[in-house]
Amino acid sequence: MKQVNGEIGRKVVTAADLKEKLEEEIELYASIYKVRKMKGFAFVLLRTGREVFQCLYEEAFCNVKLEELVEESCVKARVFVKPEERSKLGIDLMLRHVEILSSPTEGSPIVINQKRVDTSLQNLLDFRMVTLRNERERSIFKLQEGIVFGIREFLSNEHFTEIRSPKIVYQGAEGGANIFKLDYFGRDAYLAQSPQFYKQMMVGVFHRVFEIGPVFRAEKHDTSRHLNEYTSVDFEMGFIESFEDIMQMECALLRFVFKFLQENYQNELEILQVKLPKVNEIPVIKFMKAKELIRDTYQREITDLLDFEPEEEKLLSEIFLKDTGSEFVFVTHYPSMKRPFYTMDSSENSQETLSFDLIFRGIEITTGGQRIHQYEKQVDKLIQKGMNVEEFASYLAMHKFGMPPHGGLGLGLERFTSRLLNQDNVRYSTLFPRDLNRLTP
Amino acid sequence: MKQVNGEIGRKVVTAADLKEKLEEEIELYASIYKVRKMKGFAFVLLRTGREVFQCLYEEAFCNVKLEELVEESCVKARVFVKPEERSKLGIDLMLRHVEILSSPTEGSPIVINQKRVDTSLQNLLDFRMVTLRNERERSIFKLQEGIVFGIREFLSNEHFTEIRSPKIVYQGAEGGANIFKLDYFGRDAYLAQSPQFYKQMMVGVFHRVFEIGPVFRAEKHDTSRHLNEYTSVDFEMGFIESFEDIMQMECALLRFVFKFLQENYQNELEILQVKLPKVNEIPVIKFMKAKELIRDTYQREITDLLDFEPEEEKLLSEIFLKDTGSEFVFVTHYPSMKRPFYTMDSSENSQETLSFDLIFRGIEITTGGQRIHQYEKQVDKLIQKGMNVEEFASYLAMHKFGMPPHGGLGLGLERFTSRLLNQDNVRYSTLFPRDLNRLTP
Repeated sequence: MKQVNGEIGRKVVTAADLKEKLEEEIELYASIYKVRKMKGFAFVLLRTGREVFQCLYEEAFCNVKLEELVEESCVKARVFVKPEERSKLGIDLMLRHVEILSSPTEGSPIVINQKRVDTSLQNLLDFRMVTLRNERERSIFKLQEGIVFGIREFLSNEHFTEIRSPKIVYQGAEGGANIFKLDYFGRDAYLAQSPQFYKQMMVGVFHRVFEIGPVFRAEKHDTSRHLNEYTSVDFEMGFIESFEDIMQMECALLRFVFKFLQENYQNELEILQVKLPKVNEIPVIKFMKAKELIRDTYQREITDLLDFEPEEEKLLSEIFLKDTGSEFVFVTHYPSMKRPFYTMDSSENSQETLSFDLIFRGIEITTGGQRIHQYEKQVDKLIQKGMNVEEFASYLAMHKFGMPPHGGLGLGLERFTSRLLNQDNVRYSTLFPRDLNRLTP
Repeated sequence: MKQVNGEIGRKVVTAADLKEKLEEEIELYASIYKVRKMKGFAFVLLRTGREVFQCLYEEAFCNVKLEELVEESCVKARVFVKPEERSKLGIDLMLRHVEILSSPTEGSPIVINQKRVDTSLQNLLDFRMVTLRNERERSIFKLQEGIVFGIREFLSNEHFTEIRSPKIVYQGAEGGANIFKLDYFGRDAYLAQSPQFYKQMMVGVFHRVFEIGPVFRAEKHDTSRHLNEYTSVDFEMGFIESFEDIMQMECALLRFVFKFLQENYQNELEILQVKLPKVNEIPVIKFMKAKELIRDTYQREITDLLDFEPEEEKLLSEIFLKDTGSEFVFVTHYPSMKRPFYTMDSSENSQETLSFDLIFRGIEITTGGQRIHQYEKQVDKLIQKGMNVEEFASYLAMHKFGMPPHGGLGLGLERFTSRLLNQDNVRYSTLFPRDLNRLTP
């Protein structure tokens, strides 16, 4: 009888593996990234899943002719590892034998094997299937993986449980018209704008939960910072004393993530030339105070009393960077009118909420706050907001049956990545963006 | 100026912490799970995020009256840790001081603090916000977290990169009518049935990728094993020699996951009384051979030559359990007619594909196989299947620009969990199920 036993051969070879194989031959499975002809020899750059290795090709020592080595072919190569002090890895790789496993039928319409892909954003995204093969482009998403891994490790250490809530929902959490509707077997259903209701329910169960998953916003904004589908990093924690507990947790989270990247994603940090921000203390300012500070510093009229204009977030960041050296700033106590019905109001001023945004390098990347955990208060707030209490029966059940004081936040993963890399458009940090005009690839 | 510095107080207390605080008082943030009155004293069960601690209440030694301790209240408690050899943890917890942080306005309509929640599936799901607070119910989802963590750790160790692909898509990957449609700013769009196209594209980039995320199937099946939204664990790997490499990887993955659960989720395994399957060798049988084996063993007519009936999967599992002791069996070489257009056909018999299903305790939990990586072959196959080649231009671009031989699989997380726990309905392992009749909570 035939069986499989779980023996996995053909391990992925890393730079570390190569350095342990001095004076030996090693098998590499790779894509041919680039062939650079020199006088009498050539450099052949082999791309593995995370690295690019430069190999030395000399016709006399290799089984194939140079013209057989077509870029974006996939090969099984045997290379000899020669110690070489002057090279970066301390080794030279001599290409000895190549077996072509597959070949492209066409060359890429965009040059992908230079330091940067030199093309428009539109082309970059239209041809994601090849442009992502560029060393720099793919590093963005490897680093994004690292951000997520760091977040998960931190939250797990802090006893948060990872959950997965449904994306097809009966009602939106954020209200408003910015919601995608679909036909669900003859009934109306919606795509989740956030896991808000579910993560709150799960606080009653696990006390601390997090979710990292897609959310959907049918916003008609066509800007450099909006997406219609993005990855939301959400956490929610019970037994808080104040909404500041959540800001403290986020501060510790950020510090952990940057350390985690430093330790595990050095390769990508170098390729992308990332300067990781220092997270010592993060300054905190009330929303109205921030408005006034911007007005006074830049002699700008306050035109919107309920929210920031994008320019104001930018200016606020500038002020705090200059005054404190911090690239992050927490803005708190947003007006009740602008925050969703589940947000807890301040006991001192019911026009203000116990909520916050985190602004990073000029753009809001997090919204969070304390939630109403008492049944009567939540019912009152719904009525006060003119909402239909009966529609929220299932949501309110948790309040009725007992909830700890709690709060949480949502962080936009693509936006955060994009700020970290100082990109001028969030789409550069989005694997396959969805916006007003883009639904492919 | 106000600042936060990332100091997180109020750590979650675990059993391990308690044992280190002998003869001391410790602060516990918890929900009151159960109050059991005895003669002259009471047991008060405190539920934290992962554990339940039994405390001894005596009126003389505590600041509150017993009737103040209402089930599902949230409290800050001070308990004295008394060494006690006869107790399971080696300690007794004496309730000394309780501060009530919040109280329910109503008792749960369903008893949740017995060993099992004794109610219908319908009620269990309708009242998820409370029934999940039951120690056993929530353990299912803590264990499910562990399955996912184990999978991630294994795949990361094997150099797979985690990706997140869009869920709003231009076309389905699996074809057919089982797809949810939505209005995307005046255009038709669909909910992803699988990350198939994207994970293949990303094999060209990272060579090995995985994604754990929601997928959507508009199937009108109302069965104990179908969901309309579920979590798919997908991986895809380049540079395979045969589709058996994928089965080997899955075999190793399963072995790792069970070991990981044994090491990190002992608490839940005990509560749920899980007997983890042994993964030594997994037997492999061809689809037609399996059909014949079932026919001959049970004297059943073969009525469907292209697929299994659910009963046949069950019988096949029985045969292999009896003959080999394995609770898993791989079935390979499914008919080309029943497999999607990207599946590679066998070179020996073009009616058969290089594909497999994994059957676990009578139910299919994985579908996988080798994909067509050559441009011309993929175009031919599309034509042969009567599909519109032009519609797949963006998908075919990756084949054109070069792809390694590759393949992968998808594993249904809820189904896998449900089989592991020997449940008779996949909904028991689904946090908030979506089916023909259920869109809430």
